[in-house]
Amino acid sequence: MKTHYINVKTKGNTDIINITSYIEEIVNKENIKDGLLFLQVIGSTAALTTMEYEPGQKKDLKTLFDEIIPYRSDWEHNFTWSDDNGHSHLRSSLLKTNYFVPVTDGELDLGTWQQVVLIDFDTRPRQRKVVVKVIT
Amino acid sequence: MKTHYINVKTKGNTDIINITSYIEEIVNKENIKDGLLFLQVIGSTAALTTMEYEPGQKKDLKTLFDEIIPYRSDWEHNFTWSDDNGHSHLRSSLLKTNYFVPVTDGELDLGTWQQVVLIDFDTRPRQRKVVVKVIT
Amino acid sequence: MKTHYINVKTKGNTDIINITSYIEEIVNKENIKDGLLFLQVIGSTAALTTMEYEPGQKKDLKTLFDEIIPYRSDWEHNFTWSDDNGHSHLRSSLLKTNYFVPVTDGELDLGTWQQVVLIDFDTRPRQRKVVVKVIT
Repeated sequence: MKTHYINVKTKGNTDIINITSYIEEIVNKENIKDGLLFLQVIGSTAALTTMEYEPGQKKDLKTLFDEIIPYRSDWEHNFTWSDDNGHSHLRSSLLKTNYFVPVTDGELDLGTWQQVVLIDFDTRPRQRKVVVKVIT
Repeated sequence: MKTHYINVKTKGNTDIINITSYIEEIVNKENIKDGLLFLQVIGSTAALTTMEYEPGQKKDLKTLFDEIIPYRSDWEHNFTWSDDNGHSHLRSSLLKTNYFVPVTDGELDLGTWQQVVLIDFDTRPRQRKVVVKVIT
Repeated sequence: MKTHYINVKTKGNTDIINITSYIEEIVNKENIKDGLLFLQVIGSTAALTTMEYEPGQKKDLKTLFDEIIPYRSDWEHNFTWSDDNGHSHLRSSLLKTNYFVPVTDGELDLGTWQQVVLIDFDTRPRQRKVVVKVIT
């Protein structure tokens, strides 16, 4: 099983990074015609999903998370570590840290307007590592 | 790796389609006794998950999405394309477009009351394609 | 393909169980150096995800689900079966019943503060079965 790594710098605070081109790079480099890529972002304050990666949609996604899982100084987790990222953990648990992408005829099975994104919910800039396992 | 496709017509507007029988058909046709099926619905306004597929639960799931990610004419995405499906994109990003089902002894590893569903969040009827990759 | 089972007793009512050690046991027993573990909890009122498993974060996760998908006696599903777990089903559908964990150099690809958890949303104690398929 081939393992690849995608390393990205984020600004934190629900920073949304389009990682689709990194995934395509792996597909091209390994000359994958038919298979599956399994992506896992390491950590408990980030997540992976897909979206139409355009500025309006990015704003909406941040708005959504601010509405359903708002920052609160008094999330219990914050008292455990005298920290401020309780909401970041909750967002990661809800959206989850993994995603897989099928590949057919050398192309990712995604829609035209569908990109794979890493979202960093932490409250500070982070260096993130995505583990990619390839099955063909 | 075997690839199959499930094609479904939807009515849009959080239309919930039970695709379990299509998956069972693939398992039977390929005579899969032990393995994994990887499902990906193509697009950024649909998603896959499981539920107890009965009319009350279907209504509840629609209610839930209307409550946590409501339709709004002023989601930023709508201004990008003069469109009205900003909420559809958000629902898809949160629920995600993929799902996998293990198979043991020729049966899907699901509960008795658990069905695999495709949910189309777009605001118009769509023809949806689900890519299914089989690993045995 | 190797199949393993993790059996856990839960208290229901959004009981959160850390199943990471069970997964590590499988990795050790099978002497997996490089691979993927696919986990599926059977049923439509439970789910799998990751979190930092500490008491404050556990409280916050329960609070979150109580806020975004509250108990209601009048969820439509409850009238179907004269039951009280409509919200449990919705929480499971949103969070989903499956998760996969990559393994590299014999270690789970998780963060230091990231544990795999089973959450039982049902309204009564349950015996839960997690199917684990191993690909190496």
